Amino acid sequence: MSKMGDFQDPKHIEGVEVSSVSADLYKNGRDDLTLFYFKNGANCAVAYTASSITSESISWNKKNTKKNIKALAVNTKNANTFTGKQGHSSLDEIGKLLAETLSIREKNVDNKKNTSIKTSEIMFASTGVIGEVFPVEKIKSSINNLVENLRTNQNKLIWLKVASAIMTTDTKPKVASEEIKINGKTIKITGVAKGSGMIAPNLATMLSFIFTDADISSINLNKFLKRIIKNTFNAITVDSDTSTNDTVALFSTRKVKISNLNSSSKEGLKFEEALSKVCLELAKQIVVDGEGAKKFVTVKILNAKSFNRAKKIAFSIANSPLVKTAIAGEDPNWGRILMGIGKSGEKVDPKKIIIKFGEFVVAEKGKISDTYDEEKLKEYMQWPSIIIEVDLNQGNDNYECYTCDFTHDYININADYRRS
Amino acid sequence: MSKMGDFQDPKHIEGVEVSSVSADLYKNGRDDLTLFYFKNGANCAVAYTASSITSESISWNKKNTKKNIKALAVNTKNANTFTGKQGHSSLDEIGKLLAETLSIREKNVDNKKNTSIKTSEIMFASTGVIGEVFPVEKIKSSINNLVENLRTNQNKLIWLKVASAIMTTDTKPKVASEEIKINGKTIKITGVAKGSGMIAPNLATMLSFIFTDADISSINLNKFLKRIIKNTFNAITVDSDTSTNDTVALFSTRKVKISNLNSSSKEGLKFEEALSKVCLELAKQIVVDGEGAKKFVTVKILNAKSFNRAKKIAFSIANSPLVKTAIAGEDPNWGRILMGIGKSGEKVDPKKIIIKFGEFVVAEKGKISDTYDEEKLKEYMQWPSIIIEVDLNQGNDNYECYTCDFTHDYININADYRRS
Repeated sequence: MSKMGDFQDPKHIEGVEVSSVSADLYKNGRDDLTLFYFKNGANCAVAYTASSITSESISWNKKNTKKNIKALAVNTKNANTFTGKQGHSSLDEIGKLLAETLSIREKNVDNKKNTSIKTSEIMFASTGVIGEVFPVEKIKSSINNLVENLRTNQNKLIWLKVASAIMTTDTKPKVASEEIKINGKTIKITGVAKGSGMIAPNLATMLSFIFTDADISSINLNKFLKRIIKNTFNAITVDSDTSTNDTVALFSTRKVKISNLNSSSKEGLKFEEALSKVCLELAKQIVVDGEGAKKFVTVKILNAKSFNRAKKIAFSIANSPLVKTAIAGEDPNWGRILMGIGKSGEKVDPKKIIIKFGEFVVAEKGKISDTYDEEKLKEYMQWPSIIIEVDLNQGNDNYECYTCDFTHDYININADYRRS
Repeated sequence: MSKMGDFQDPKHIEGVEVSSVSADLYKNGRDDLTLFYFKNGANCAVAYTASSITSESISWNKKNTKKNIKALAVNTKNANTFTGKQGHSSLDEIGKLLAETLSIREKNVDNKKNTSIKTSEIMFASTGVIGEVFPVEKIKSSINNLVENLRTNQNKLIWLKVASAIMTTDTKPKVASEEIKINGKTIKITGVAKGSGMIAPNLATMLSFIFTDADISSINLNKFLKRIIKNTFNAITVDSDTSTNDTVALFSTRKVKISNLNSSSKEGLKFEEALSKVCLELAKQIVVDGEGAKKFVTVKILNAKSFNRAKKIAFSIANSPLVKTAIAGEDPNWGRILMGIGKSGEKVDPKKIIIKFGEFVVAEKGKISDTYDEEKLKEYMQWPSIIIEVDLNQGNDNYECYTCDFTHDYININADYRRS
């Protein structure tokens, strides 16, 4: 729908090998099982869903996975949530088999003895339907194939293949990449993501895996991730729902050593900016590809009394079905923006509020703007990307979030999701 | 869609006169201006929207209206919100004219001198589009007609006419009535309501006016209203949005004197039960007639740790677009119920949760139920009224809320509302 789906060629990240195959989880032959393999290990930081009910894959990671990661296995079609003991013990079995299979490969390739991989070096992520028996046998019987297909070098096509393999109702693979120089050394960041429905603040059926060759400790990765997530992955909403499976993980393959690359240095700031770009690009791609979305919507709140108030008002507008259906209908119904501000419950001074669609002021001084021009607005509302700006004139804090419109296709996709 | 639209014949309430006319606000001749007149005054309790931006009609009432009410004037099509000084001073003008016109009528009818009505005895309510210039002249030129059409006696047809006159996108008028005996005396309660979109907890584009002939002080009316509202009007949601105009008002015409009828007596309890029935019936009618709704959904949360937790989880499920689209698609996708529980953020023990659709247990002990039967569930999901029950097995508090499914028609109605 917009140009935002385009992206620069995704970069190869030294130290990451990738593979995706069909384990027949979907019955149409598409890839549905993905492996990211870090031969020499990776540092890692992860942010999981805020939901109080989580996938067995997440509980398994929390219980078993140590900080040095060797492999990340991702399945689609089945969320491994509310699958009870069967779901949990499935991962024990798969983890054991995967560790063995990878160890054998290492032995064959390097002819070394001390290359055995532990299950505690494996991480899982799942997305799909909740509450169905986890397809452990199908996945186990695909492990050999998955490991055999590992590719040491990635190019654009391979990243697209992997990003496609983690999709559910997404219509496009989501990849973003940045290359920057710090102290004369080149470092790369490449990430993939999947989204579509259940996208709301605090992550939603969103999986995103971001890889960098820069050598950064897990502690510092965690600091970077926490800082950038609130304005990227946590600043998007498709339908206000939150999934049980959300995972954003950031990996460092430690290949490029740069002194002083930590979360409080100027080198770190440069890295953070590039990381933020990758994550914001992925987050926006998720919204652009929101279920049934035809329009990309940016909601900007200016001059609020605090960051949290600005955020609350932004999401109150962005999550409103009435706002989102009006945008789908290309109707500049700014009364619904007001309704969204009001229902946030945050105190505002209606007389100070200025509401704009793009560059057009629609309301100010407690009433419709004197320059209001319905014809110009109708034209603007036909654009594929709409900016709603609310200046509260109350303080100095701003917040920006991203959403999409609410269309018939959202209902089509979700009315019968399990049978698709 | 269901039988809930049926109701017992609405009762005449002694001391209420009603009138509705077309002020040409809608341009199709339908009634859009309504008057409730209490010749001998009425006690009153009102609950307004929790939105931080409210209609000028609400601000006007808060500023001007005293406790003894003589008249309530309701207009549709224009919300009188974000209409600035024009919206506020319009009500000064209309109030003055209405008071004069009613005073003249009283003089003519009773030939008394001391019947003059003050603007401070008038109350307003508005519903419709936000931010458009308030049609003061159209309303003023209809006041004579409105007052001339006042009817002292109401029957079913007249209540339906009035309930139709306050509608916006509603497809059916909403009326409910109860007649009970307390200490040998008959008292009556009749209410009208309008709803449709922007329906969520804390009231939403919901107007409801409830009348009783029982003599109850404004203070006690207020106590009754506060108690019953949380399980009736505040227990419904159509789309999670909240309007700037919601008003639920309860009037007593003081005609039937019953000793000891207060909020803490057994007589009061009997009254409260009847009032609660009327309000719940109106609230359910609003949900049944939710924009585009094809199914009525009851969400029951059992054995939560507190009332507030039960309520939060209930609305987290009831407001979920993913749950509501699944119900529209008649898909027993109980994973989305789990998602709804999880995204509430309330701590639960997944292994203790029992989820039922109607009488069918779908999940328990942290996994799909052993008795799960997809065919039976699919049949059940075709019913027009669906019950989702979640037993948390954590405590002793229950909460029940009501919503509808999310259909294509919701989008049709809301994509182009302003032009309809």
